Amino acid sequence: MKKVVVGVDIGGTNTVFGLVDNTGKELAEGHLKTTDYPVVKDFVTALVSGIGKLMAGKKDLELAGVGIGAPDANFHRGTIEHAPNLAWKGIVPLADLIKKEIKVPVVLTNDANAAAMGEMVFGGAKKMKDFIVLTLGTGLGSGIVVDGKLVYGHTGFAGEVGHMTVVPGGRECGCGRKGCLETYASASGLVKTVSLMISEMREDSILRGVPPSKLSSKQIAEAAAKNDPVAVKAMEYTAEKLGFGIVNSIVFTSPEAIFLFGGLAQAGEMLFAPVRKYLAKNNYVLFKNTVKILPSGISESNGAVLGSAALILNELSM
Amino acid sequence: MKKVVVGVDIGGTNTVFGLVDNTGKELAEGHLKTTDYPVVKDFVTALVSGIGKLMAGKKDLELAGVGIGAPDANFHRGTIEHAPNLAWKGIVPLADLIKKEIKVPVVLTNDANAAAMGEMVFGGAKKMKDFIVLTLGTGLGSGIVVDGKLVYGHTGFAGEVGHMTVVPGGRECGCGRKGCLETYASASGLVKTVSLMISEMREDSILRGVPPSKLSSKQIAEAAAKNDPVAVKAMEYTAEKLGFGIVNSIVFTSPEAIFLFGGLAQAGEMLFAPVRKYLAKNNYVLFKNTVKILPSGISESNGAVLGSAALILNELSM
Repeated sequence: MKKVVVGVDIGGTNTVFGLVDNTGKELAEGHLKTTDYPVVKDFVTALVSGIGKLMAGKKDLELAGVGIGAPDANFHRGTIEHAPNLAWKGIVPLADLIKKEIKVPVVLTNDANAAAMGEMVFGGAKKMKDFIVLTLGTGLGSGIVVDGKLVYGHTGFAGEVGHMTVVPGGRECGCGRKGCLETYASASGLVKTVSLMISEMREDSILRGVPPSKLSSKQIAEAAAKNDPVAVKAMEYTAEKLGFGIVNSIVFTSPEAIFLFGGLAQAGEMLFAPVRKYLAKNNYVLFKNTVKILPSGISESNGAVLGSAALILNELSM
Repeated sequence: MKKVVVGVDIGGTNTVFGLVDNTGKELAEGHLKTTDYPVVKDFVTALVSGIGKLMAGKKDLELAGVGIGAPDANFHRGTIEHAPNLAWKGIVPLADLIKKEIKVPVVLTNDANAAAMGEMVFGGAKKMKDFIVLTLGTGLGSGIVVDGKLVYGHTGFAGEVGHMTVVPGGRECGCGRKGCLETYASASGLVKTVSLMISEMREDSILRGVPPSKLSSKQIAEAAAKNDPVAVKAMEYTAEKLGFGIVNSIVFTSPEAIFLFGGLAQAGEMLFAPVRKYLAKNNYVLFKNTVKILPSGISESNGAVLGSAALILNELSM
């Protein structure tokens, strides 16, 4: 019998789950529409049934555990708590609900922590003990690894680098405060920056023809690659804010590398080059030339499933 | 035979070392003038001889190890590296030099990390797994504990919260950059704030009669306690900057408590009350009411020696 695990990625709209072995090979994958299940118990029933279908007929495989990445997830308690982007309100004891049905260990953490576990187990951080993963999507998520272990902290919610204040009194954040890093250094932050710059700058730009609600970080990165002046300036501004956040992160845990993952990281060197330049100039002297800025070593397509699988593989020491 | 350790606190001017048992009782203490030993080998000889004197005649005691707190110390390598406030230039392999003479384990870390170990082993963090100690003296040092272990990071220099940038383009810092937290939230930062406010404000203040070079954080705290308007405003400004740094620290490691230690922390409620008020208002929602702001549970008088002793006791699991 070969032991396998299931990695689950719960998003506001879709849920993806995959059967993964301890080499990071995804053997089968299933999908659910999260929004089809406004009652969490129905979601659990559907997920457990879906996992059953993935395992069906595979007599040589034994399910060893389930790892889940979800918004506002608490590792210590196995709960999802007050997630604004999910229909399940209050404190949802998701790990326990699934464990009751499926009788194997179930662990839960937020998606950025799962990404960090994926990086450590299957990606670019295999030989690293101290690193940080920043997921640059709609928001900015972070997973911090210290001495080979994810940092959960007293509450289980540690690693919210996206909510470091970088501009006192700056842009309004979904968290109710102002100037959080994620309002600048994320895919949506970049779009906001372009919208502002289009108003402030006189130069021509192909982005002027796009309605703000349709602008994407991909479009902007492509425009920057073609030397569009607004796009170039917006990428530099974003890189500077991200660099500021990174420099302020390094003083805490002195990581060997910062991995950038998610939509905005797809901009590649248009983002990485100015971030590295910022660090070369502004990093604290003790940490100069000690930190690599790297793209994630996990593919964007099934990275979330692999990360959640890595979480449970690590927990089971498989 | 009862096992004891030696805790050593190396400062720019003075070195204190004490014989400490595993209950935190200091049995004997010795002193050296650091500046008397421009050659590190002479310092080692004097320290080892001093430790020998402390142990002399105590036939029931066995020396189990030596813990050292020193500026710019690297735990991983057992070195002091490029310390601007010491005569020993370059990279000094202090742990090895002492070990060679004294034949017991020797560990070394910076003074703020030693303070954090002291807090965990003997102080207010005995039952805590996640906390941060901020030492508010001439600079701002920090020791970060995650899941019961000090954070050293890839380089061994992690925990430099004093060099988080809090005011881009702000006050000049000794590190060559601008706007570091320690230029505001430290005993010397408070003195700078008062000097500036005396120029900017018209109100009367007893501090106007003191030359800037003679101003101390103690004087300012005492004036604030007497409602001196400049001193009160300076304390509030300092607390706000410290609160900003604390809120930005909490998003990393979600500690159970932040301990404030050192000269500026002696201001007591004049500092703690506005810091707590800042947190109540500005802390990230997930961490609201999860973090205690506490005075150190270690006495200021021999805290540094106890911290260094705690470092080696922890290392030896004594």
